[in-house]
Amino acid sequence: MGSIYLYNNRFLSAEEVAISPEDRGYYYGDGIYEVFRVYNGRLFEPGLHFDRLERTAAGLRLNLPMDRSALLEKLEELVLRNRLNEGTLYIQFTRGAAPRSLPFPKEAEPSLMAYTTEVARPVAAMEAGIRAKTVEDIRWLHCDYKTLNLLPNVLAKQEAVEAGTDDAILHRGGTVTECSASNIMIVRDGVILTHPADNLILHGVTRAVVLRLAHAAELAVLERPFTLEELLGADEAFITGTTVEVTPVVSVDGQAIGSGAAGPVTRRLQRDFAAAIGL
Amino acid sequence: MGSIYLYNNRFLSAEEVAISPEDRGYYYGDGIYEVFRVYNGRLFEPGLHFDRLERTAAGLRLNLPMDRSALLEKLEELVLRNRLNEGTLYIQFTRGAAPRSLPFPKEAEPSLMAYTTEVARPVAAMEAGIRAKTVEDIRWLHCDYKTLNLLPNVLAKQEAVEAGTDDAILHRGGTVTECSASNIMIVRDGVILTHPADNLILHGVTRAVVLRLAHAAELAVLERPFTLEELLGADEAFITGTTVEVTPVVSVDGQAIGSGAAGPVTRRLQRDFAAAIGL
Repeated sequence: MGSIYLYNNRFLSAEEVAISPEDRGYYYGDGIYEVFRVYNGRLFEPGLHFDRLERTAAGLRLNLPMDRSALLEKLEELVLRNRLNEGTLYIQFTRGAAPRSLPFPKEAEPSLMAYTTEVARPVAAMEAGIRAKTVEDIRWLHCDYKTLNLLPNVLAKQEAVEAGTDDAILHRGGTVTECSASNIMIVRDGVILTHPADNLILHGVTRAVVLRLAHAAELAVLERPFTLEELLGADEAFITGTTVEVTPVVSVDGQAIGSGAAGPVTRRLQRDFAAAIGL
Repeated sequence: MGSIYLYNNRFLSAEEVAISPEDRGYYYGDGIYEVFRVYNGRLFEPGLHFDRLERTAAGLRLNLPMDRSALLEKLEELVLRNRLNEGTLYIQFTRGAAPRSLPFPKEAEPSLMAYTTEVARPVAAMEAGIRAKTVEDIRWLHCDYKTLNLLPNVLAKQEAVEAGTDDAILHRGGTVTECSASNIMIVRDGVILTHPADNLILHGVTRAVVLRLAHAAELAVLERPFTLEELLGADEAFITGTTVEVTPVVSVDGQAIGSGAAGPVTRRLQRDFAAAIGL
């Protein structure tokens, strides 16, 4: 059962959505996106997603064709039309359709595409944890923009999967940045460490929520880069993201992290996160 | 008058080409491309373009759906159907349509899209030269792959255009790499310098042709990185590319290069290039 799509201002079946071969999203990846979590039929933390969407749009000078409240209304209608209770809502804006030429086109209207997917919470992975592989981070220097240029993420994830692991942990010359589609935090001597929200990582909504929960729980947090060595010697490691929520990393490159199972800080944050989403 | 498109195995009008919203080219930029030059109704240096297409495909593990000779036949038919005498042929392959998920999809078939554009040789720019602006190169570390992840190129070109110049010269911390869609060479003390064909630049077909011509003309060539300072102090500078051919760069960041007009090495290579394309 396919999703009903929102394509520009119309609600369409997947088969009815026809992207122009001149869409700049198609030939340049010239566009931006967000993935919202839907719990109990409601968008989770829409404000944080809209903040990031607008920040990326400003960075790329892509003019969003509608304001936040008009967009929110459309997205809530999309969730309703799809009778989505638990899942994700994907939305992307491209710079529109125009003859292929690098500079911003003068005439093109940005193009909006959105749809929903039923996705259950990752209960098994949150319980058992995942195995990860370290992969060199070769991305561009604006990883804070959530854009459609995702080839390096595709290649890193594929490399991790082919190695029999669940995800890639990216590092630049030994400094851990994030994963292929989530942020990573470690716990050492009771302190939560995570890469600062600069240009080298995507500023995750779940990352922000988890840091807020950690502060509320009076857990020590340091936003500073950490090395592969610190990761491998950590007491705990976990990833945060819209679909993975708070998922323990129990091994990296075949080596157990901490006890090789989710640690107490991870468990605490998982409980607090479940409470935050009203479960 | 729009081009007839080649879309997978069919020849279609632009209006008939409907890209799936689940095409990985659309949401990840997960695809590769080439731009061929057409002179006198014939593809220029098709072998070099196919070499690069196959190299990029291998790097991204994208299985091309047809071999070189079958593809060449299709492209020649596309040129004929469009009655194209002078212009470009654009072709891209994406990893195909599949539900959005980072790893390579198991079922998807790569998707091919190609069309032609009438483009005259850039006679005025080749004569008068272009002005350029230096822009920090923030791209990923596989610039040798010719992929659809072109947002940094879009942003660099836009920055150059808004500064009232014609193109961006990219540099990594002061080391010149290339331009937004072409390679760059400078001449110092009679020696042609250009960045080596490593992972930091696109290995231009015109770059290769021009180096071949330089060797044939017994001009001294050094493939080594050069700095912004060496560029600004150069006797000559020129860019090479499929649509720009050999175009002089007469000023950078408002400062004249050499005499502020095309120099003798540039002129020589322009003449030899014109001869190479049979003009």
